[in-house]
Amino acid sequence: MADPLFETVALIGIGLIGSSLARIIRRENLAKTIVVSTRRPETLARARELELGDDYVGDAAEAVANADLVIASVPVGASESVARKIADRLKPGAIVTDVGSTKASVIQQMAPHLPSAVHFIPGHPIAGTEHSGPDAGFADLFEGRWCVLTPLPGTDETALAKLTRFWERCGSRVDTMDPEHHDMVLAIVSHLPHIIAYNIVGTADDLEAVTKSEVIKYSASGFRDFTRLAASDPIMWRDVCLHNRDAILEMLARFSEDLSALQRAIRWGDGEKLFDLFTRTRAVRRSIIEAGQEVDAPDFGRHVIAHPPKPEKA
Amino acid sequence: MADPLFETVALIGIGLIGSSLARIIRRENLAKTIVVSTRRPETLARARELELGDDYVGDAAEAVANADLVIASVPVGASESVARKIADRLKPGAIVTDVGSTKASVIQQMAPHLPSAVHFIPGHPIAGTEHSGPDAGFADLFEGRWCVLTPLPGTDETALAKLTRFWERCGSRVDTMDPEHHDMVLAIVSHLPHIIAYNIVGTADDLEAVTKSEVIKYSASGFRDFTRLAASDPIMWRDVCLHNRDAILEMLARFSEDLSALQRAIRWGDGEKLFDLFTRTRAVRRSIIEAGQEVDAPDFGRHVIAHPPKPEKA
Repeated sequence: MADPLFETVALIGIGLIGSSLARIIRRENLAKTIVVSTRRPETLARARELELGDDYVGDAAEAVANADLVIASVPVGASESVARKIADRLKPGAIVTDVGSTKASVIQQMAPHLPSAVHFIPGHPIAGTEHSGPDAGFADLFEGRWCVLTPLPGTDETALAKLTRFWERCGSRVDTMDPEHHDMVLAIVSHLPHIIAYNIVGTADDLEAVTKSEVIKYSASGFRDFTRLAASDPIMWRDVCLHNRDAILEMLARFSEDLSALQRAIRWGDGEKLFDLFTRTRAVRRSIIEAGQEVDAPDFGRHVIAHPPKPEKA
Repeated sequence: MADPLFETVALIGIGLIGSSLARIIRRENLAKTIVVSTRRPETLARARELELGDDYVGDAAEAVANADLVIASVPVGASESVARKIADRLKPGAIVTDVGSTKASVIQQMAPHLPSAVHFIPGHPIAGTEHSGPDAGFADLFEGRWCVLTPLPGTDETALAKLTRFWERCGSRVDTMDPEHHDMVLAIVSHLPHIIAYNIVGTADDLEAVTKSEVIKYSASGFRDFTRLAASDPIMWRDVCLHNRDAILEMLARFSEDLSALQRAIRWGDGEKLFDLFTRTRAVRRSIIEAGQEVDAPDFGRHVIAHPPKPEKA
């Protein structure tokens, strides 16, 4: 077992990401002491029951006082509040990072409040599930997934290397990027898909001609895929929409333009145009599977999980 | 093992659905003889290599000559051509069915050509994966899934009961519905989701500001879910769009209206409206899981398939 990278890590927020971090930090011995902090007393009590840390502290300022590494895992809209709370108690030389899905806004919210004696290195592990809360986390969440760091100009190289090493030992591959580019990339690969999924599930829920029970019964024909994304944490996603507005509106505009063209092809019965689009998109999935970012199993492999195959007769 | 329901079944088309039928018919002993027919000689040869049937016949007319049950599993746009080919050779009393994703169009294409001495009962098993072709099928495909039959007025009750029994022995639950209602239900639960998925993958593929390699690397954050649907058979989906046009355009119009409202909420920073929608949609997924139409595992369980969990240290 490798030596711990940090003496004390403070986890501010202990939801899906925070509690997955707690589990992998413990399993991989990445810190000697894990301090867990979260605002809601019930959540803190649950973290204690799950034995996610060594210390459990309601007050974020108190939680960070001895930490070499502070990780804020909160909805992006709460970033400024966390920075204000912890600023005065941070240990000089500590690394402060976050896991938020938008980066420019988090920097704007946190950087002005943090003392120059700490290393603030914003980050975003591209990993998650539709579940939330401290029970939802698991140690393997980051395995094989990318983590994007968006260091500010003048960031200390040693601190950056150490945080990189931390994420690698969590199982991640690490990339660096400027915050605005991160926000544009995530707008298309994550934010737009979630917004579209929320929207289509809402549309189906509002129909009168088709009953809700029919939508549910026949959901296996495609719809249920969308319900997974649309079951994600509503506070997290509200904040993403509010804090990456411009990039999201840009991607929504492009999506809507393309959808109008597709709608016209359907109206006019332009089979060739439909076939061309439907063929081109097939290649994208193959590339994702080849890049190790998706399982190589039909239907995400869920059929195997639901119905372990019976032996076929000879 | 129960007795076979049919002497001879003819499978016209041996793709994902046809080849899954071949496998379950064999495993469950649903017919004494399986005749496989498909237009392309390579596909027929592959079906033979996979030992999917007892006889392999290029000519659909010849394939149906002795069949008590004929199942057309072809893209819906090919339905009329199949009906014309087989009409003169069908055995009196035979049941003729299909598996097409649209029903009004299939009826319009097939019914006028079929002799009154056969029982034409259109059907649609709500099951599939993003893969296609005779290698993609598997015997458990229909397990726990719904199959919708859309019998025409005056359909023989005995024939309907027999076809119902057939699908039940394939593992399906069977519903009947009128064809127009089927097409409306499927437009929202299946056709719209596929069209939206094709569209968003196309939008991502066309971006200049974000490279294709970035889309692929970071796809695990939501986008990859859509690529599964967008990897489905392009011919099948072209035909669905062309043959369920009105219901699809209706659903697209509703979806676009809702998306405009959501876009405005993002532009105006209306967090309350976003939170309300994102909360309401969460409940839909729970209902689908409770109805047995989805796996109760985060991330479709694909994480378990990709990374069997390591034991956590105590």
